[in-house]
Amino acid sequence: MNDPKTALGRKILGLKRANGLTWAEIAARIGMSPVWTCALCMGQMSAEPAQAKGIAELLGLDEEEAALLCEIPYRGAQPMPPTDPLIYRFYELILVYGTSWKEMIQEEFGDGIMSAIDFDMALERQPDQKGDRVKITLSGKFLPYKRY
Amino acid sequence: MNDPKTALGRKILGLKRANGLTWAEIAARIGMSPVWTCALCMGQMSAEPAQAKGIAELLGLDEEEAALLCEIPYRGAQPMPPTDPLIYRFYELILVYGTSWKEMIQEEFGDGIMSAIDFDMALERQPDQKGDRVKITLSGKFLPYKRY
Amino acid sequence: MNDPKTALGRKILGLKRANGLTWAEIAARIGMSPVWTCALCMGQMSAEPAQAKGIAELLGLDEEEAALLCEIPYRGAQPMPPTDPLIYRFYELILVYGTSWKEMIQEEFGDGIMSAIDFDMALERQPDQKGDRVKITLSGKFLPYKRY
Amino acid sequence: MNDPKTALGRKILGLKRANGLTWAEIAARIGMSPVWTCALCMGQMSAEPAQAKGIAELLGLDEEEAALLCEIPYRGAQPMPPTDPLIYRFYELILVYGTSWKEMIQEEFGDGIMSAIDFDMALERQPDQKGDRVKITLSGKFLPYKRY
Amino acid sequence: MNDPKTALGRKILGLKRANGLTWAEIAARIGMSPVWTCALCMGQMSAEPAQAKGIAELLGLDEEEAALLCEIPYRGAQPMPPTDPLIYRFYELILVYGTSWKEMIQEEFGDGIMSAIDFDMALERQPDQKGDRVKITLSGKFLPYKRY
Amino acid sequence: MNDPKTALGRKILGLKRANGLTWAEIAARIGMSPVWTCALCMGQMSAEPAQAKGIAELLGLDEEEAALLCEIPYRGAQPMPPTDPLIYRFYELILVYGTSWKEMIQEEFGDGIMSAIDFDMALERQPDQKGDRVKITLSGKFLPYKRY
Amino acid sequence: MNDPKTALGRKILGLKRANGLTWAEIAARIGMSPVWTCALCMGQMSAEPAQAKGIAELLGLDEEEAALLCEIPYRGAQPMPPTDPLIYRFYELILVYGTSWKEMIQEEFGDGIMSAIDFDMALERQPDQKGDRVKITLSGKFLPYKRY
Amino acid sequence: MNDPKTALGRKILGLKRANGLTWAEIAARIGMSPVWTCALCMGQMSAEPAQAKGIAELLGLDEEEAALLCEIPYRGAQPMPPTDPLIYRFYELILVYGTSWKEMIQEEFGDGIMSAIDFDMALERQPDQKGDRVKITLSGKFLPYKRY
Amino acid sequence: MNDPKTALGRKILGLKRANGLTWAEIAARIGMSPVWTCALCMGQMSAEPAQAKGIAELLGLDEEEAALLCEIPYRGAQPMPPTDPLIYRFYELILVYGTSWKEMIQEEFGDGIMSAIDFDMALERQPDQKGDRVKITLSGKFLPYKRY
Amino acid sequence: MNDPKTALGRKILGLKRANGLTWAEIAARIGMSPVWTCALCMGQMSAEPAQAKGIAELLGLDEEEAALLCEIPYRGAQPMPPTDPLIYRFYELILVYGTSWKEMIQEEFGDGIMSAIDFDMALERQPDQKGDRVKITLSGKFLPYKRY
Repeated sequence: MNDPKTALGRKILGLKRANGLTWAEIAARIGMSPVWTCALCMGQMSAEPAQAKGIAELLGLDEEEAALLCEIPYRGAQPMPPTDPLIYRFYELILVYGTSWKEMIQEEFGDGIMSAIDFDMALERQPDQKGDRVKITLSGKFLPYKRY
Repeated sequence: MNDPKTALGRKILGLKRANGLTWAEIAARIGMSPVWTCALCMGQMSAEPAQAKGIAELLGLDEEEAALLCEIPYRGAQPMPPTDPLIYRFYELILVYGTSWKEMIQEEFGDGIMSAIDFDMALERQPDQKGDRVKITLSGKFLPYKRY
Repeated sequence: MNDPKTALGRKILGLKRANGLTWAEIAARIGMSPVWTCALCMGQMSAEPAQAKGIAELLGLDEEEAALLCEIPYRGAQPMPPTDPLIYRFYELILVYGTSWKEMIQEEFGDGIMSAIDFDMALERQPDQKGDRVKITLSGKFLPYKRY
Repeated sequence: MNDPKTALGRKILGLKRANGLTWAEIAARIGMSPVWTCALCMGQMSAEPAQAKGIAELLGLDEEEAALLCEIPYRGAQPMPPTDPLIYRFYELILVYGTSWKEMIQEEFGDGIMSAIDFDMALERQPDQKGDRVKITLSGKFLPYKRY
Repeated sequence: MNDPKTALGRKILGLKRANGLTWAEIAARIGMSPVWTCALCMGQMSAEPAQAKGIAELLGLDEEEAALLCEIPYRGAQPMPPTDPLIYRFYELILVYGTSWKEMIQEEFGDGIMSAIDFDMALERQPDQKGDRVKITLSGKFLPYKRY
Repeated sequence: MNDPKTALGRKILGLKRANGLTWAEIAARIGMSPVWTCALCMGQMSAEPAQAKGIAELLGLDEEEAALLCEIPYRGAQPMPPTDPLIYRFYELILVYGTSWKEMIQEEFGDGIMSAIDFDMALERQPDQKGDRVKITLSGKFLPYKRY
Repeated sequence: MNDPKTALGRKILGLKRANGLTWAEIAARIGMSPVWTCALCMGQMSAEPAQAKGIAELLGLDEEEAALLCEIPYRGAQPMPPTDPLIYRFYELILVYGTSWKEMIQEEFGDGIMSAIDFDMALERQPDQKGDRVKITLSGKFLPYKRY
Repeated sequence: MNDPKTALGRKILGLKRANGLTWAEIAARIGMSPVWTCALCMGQMSAEPAQAKGIAELLGLDEEEAALLCEIPYRGAQPMPPTDPLIYRFYELILVYGTSWKEMIQEEFGDGIMSAIDFDMALERQPDQKGDRVKITLSGKFLPYKRY
Repeated sequence: MNDPKTALGRKILGLKRANGLTWAEIAARIGMSPVWTCALCMGQMSAEPAQAKGIAELLGLDEEEAALLCEIPYRGAQPMPPTDPLIYRFYELILVYGTSWKEMIQEEFGDGIMSAIDFDMALERQPDQKGDRVKITLSGKFLPYKRY
Repeated sequence: MNDPKTALGRKILGLKRANGLTWAEIAARIGMSPVWTCALCMGQMSAEPAQAKGIAELLGLDEEEAALLCEIPYRGAQPMPPTDPLIYRFYELILVYGTSWKEMIQEEFGDGIMSAIDFDMALERQPDQKGDRVKITLSGKFLPYKRY
């Protein structure tokens, strides 16, 4: 059931290119962050009606498409393991750092996890003389395992 | 060939617990960051001799074990997809955000990737009234795809 | 790193049988629920020291084994798809009811998930003339997807 | 052969949204439970003609679509492991609790399984000050392994 | 946890060979059918104490081994797809006849399944001039899908 | 290349339903067994021209469709592991009984297999007070492994 | 259960090398073909007692090892897809010629298969100016699909 | 990119049947062997223009289809493991004989492989009183592993 | 999202054939290397507008197709393991040489990798009396693992 | 059967480190190339007796270990997809360049492959102001697909 939202994503990418817009500009139109707005347009998030309306007006989507932005997706269209090198590098981070994340989060917080639902993130350019860097900041609520 | 380094990691976890040490304290001993130090001890990084010596002295490892810390690992002992919920949540982030990371990094930097080798990260507690959060900061050099 | 906890689980199953104990009786000893206590003993949960001590005294475990009960497991030793018919039936429920759970939870709560961490459950015998039934009650906190 | 029933499911989701109906209201129309009715509409159950007729009248389906509701599905359209986070959490419960379910059911009932066929379930909102909870009640007939 | 029962199975195969016994003879000793008795010895079924005692006496097993016969197995040690040609042929029958079994059982019984739990089977030699045949008779209770 | 025969199978299922026919009735028309006839119609067997003609006349298929019934299929359209519970139960039987079938057939016949090609089967209702049973009889020629 | 026979195979390879024997010489000792004898020694076939005795005498195996040669193996220890290039080339032949074998055998024989049980083969050096060739001759009984 | 060649293969199978041709007759028309000609038509080989023209004239293909016969395929359309029993038997031969082929070829030729590229094969009927046999002769150049 | 670029690749292959062009000639038109130009046309690289324009003019592509050449691909359309023998041989090189590459690169450079992004390659014919050879030269920047 | 050769490889790595040797030095001792010598020591090639003797003398291996160097390996111990980032990059090259290699080799040579058996390679440091590069040169004999 993910298909219509993913197809809309492809259409939005085209409109974004044609209109010379950035994710930051689209996000500013609805008062949300660029990452979430991008994920919404790629078909992985659900918008509230006002947000969908804002995007639809900016990009020239019709009402059915705006409604589609509000639908909750069947998430996870990304093939695994990722075949695209950019996306694969994040998969590789899990292979290399998975156990370290576990040990460090548990040392600090005890038994539990970092939520991927009550979660937000940002992505920015980090200027650097030896070559600019991609800086990603993840923030998820710690959820302790319930003992009952 | 990963096995001896992973086994050493299990021993270090025990010594760390027995000595009441934190990753930050172990890291401070060798002047490195806690995440890298943890990854080193979990068998996923290679140390320089002085770093290995510092950890060996702190934890009471013998020379052979110190040398093992210097060996370059066959990385990636983590089972995929991860069965542990804490580690799985990062896998889920790829499923949900993979295409957004691609679109956003490429919008900002053009065709290329974020390096997972010229890479560093930090992990900290983010106090929050609704429940403290895990904050993770990733930083990788942007590598443009060569056109030749 | 799951192995020692799983091995301890096998030992506990033997001691439980030898002592004619039920999960309810072991759970009562530490004031916890039978399901959680069983999951703890099977190596999938972490105990607080007092809980571990209670179980160790009841079953005759040594201090190292009590400490092992307190360690946080690398969860998920269960092979997938399950080969055991009893466990497979739960897998089959996902195949048949997965989309229905999604539609019903989202109708009631909006975009989000049922937590498997802030979660508890109970299992009981439901007498029935046509054959007694297994009744399982799951309860997980609803976590709304953050929009940011 | 699952396709036509799954496609009908997508159409029903649209009609349900357009008519502002809940699963409880659709279920009430045919005197069945909401979960079963939802599973039927999602293409995973087969209706009796009167039930199909009730749903068809309520939603404006034609006769062929009503007949399709009566057809027995090739069950199991859900991808495994689930990529959607809401559905994945149930998969994770098997990873974590699979062996505990086995030990507890067998302690109480002996060698056998909980039926996933002579099975029913309910799903409800459980109000809670710290955040409402999803409560799911499963009930399946215990089937003892035949010794012959 | 299947291992000790499978290992016992290998030992029983050796004792059976050494004592020149058939499955029919072992089964007769405990008043059960040869197929079930064989499955029990191969570690896939659980015996009642008297049955385990009968087999232990016949084959010279000790008490711990007799108790192991009574333990409920984590079933399903068979690799899939089967690599052994004899076992693979049954897998091939599913590939070829799976949809036919579904259509024929449902034509006769309606929506439901043949139980693999309330199930028994027999295996016999069917003399035939063109070469004797293996005759297998399966019998499982029909379980109708509950509508609720 | 299986597709046209599978698609024809779906059409035949519709015609069978529309005409209120049973597999036994279709089979009787061409003097064959119901199981084989069902497997033929489901696209897993090849008919002789006279048999195809009989079915075509009974159901109103055209000549091209009759010819398609005579074509030898690329067998095995069934997804594995089966996602449909009715078909999965047969897969489960292999997991549980695979090694027993091997030991019993070899005890009786020596080193070899039960043919899945020189093979026939029947399926019938077995009345039973505790609930009717599905009875399946398989018969395959024993093929001894050639020693050369 | 394949392990002891495979382990014996490794021992036989060592003895064969130490004694400077060829498969043809070992085969001649028991009056069988080199391929079958090799497959027997590699743990994939079962010998008659006299054959096992002949090999045991030639290579200096003890009685238990001779008996092991007579046991029927759980066949199929070869990993798939093959990682060894020599064995992989046969896998590649299936990828490339699989459909051609099907069309050609069926053109000649009708609906059925070439038996892999009532089967024999030979392997020889084919001198050739451009480089000697490996010549393999397979012969399997044609088994027609039974229509019933 | 395999698709157009595979689709052409299906068309050729239909024309071959309609014209009552055999692979031997088609092969004779272009002076090649039946197996290679069949593999070419099934989309797994590439023809020289004159060969393609010969087949096109015989079967009534147009110029574009003749050109398609000359294109080099992306080989390997066969699903693995094979689901069709005829093709699966060859896969089973690898499972059973893979290690024997390796040991025998290496005994005769040293370290290297049988080429699957500089390779030819033939397939014929082998009359036999107990049932005719399929005889397949494979011949591939031995390629020694280069030491450098 | 790879599809339109892959489809364009198929079209370009046809135009290249129809115009009797080589990759070297197409590459020369835009002043780039043949390998990169080929990878671009196969949909795995992104062009700068002038490069896309050059190719479009040479081959007669329209503006939309030229723009498609500039889009950054979701890389990795190649099935794995490769089914085509030419491509599989590179996969086999990893199986055989993977650990050697690791040991040799690390001996020379220390802990790090050869970049597949800051990477270029060339492919040429190497005349040889015993048969011409394919010579491939890979060059990737060494990236040292950051210690932080 | 790969295990003893892989284990010897681990021992050789230790001896190489202890003796401060490079692959070039070990290779020079036996007059072979460094890459082949490294692959031999890692257990993926077979040596001639004189070569094995040279390595054994240099590193202090015993006769049995020298003999092991001469044994032909069951090649391919590398896990796939590779989990180690250094080795994975080569896998990624296949994902990105696989189809380009195919098109370019075929343009130059026609239908066939680059041999991975009649194959050699070299690896060297390529000084570069922007960071030194790894240069790998592969050379394999072109093998044309036989038409017969």
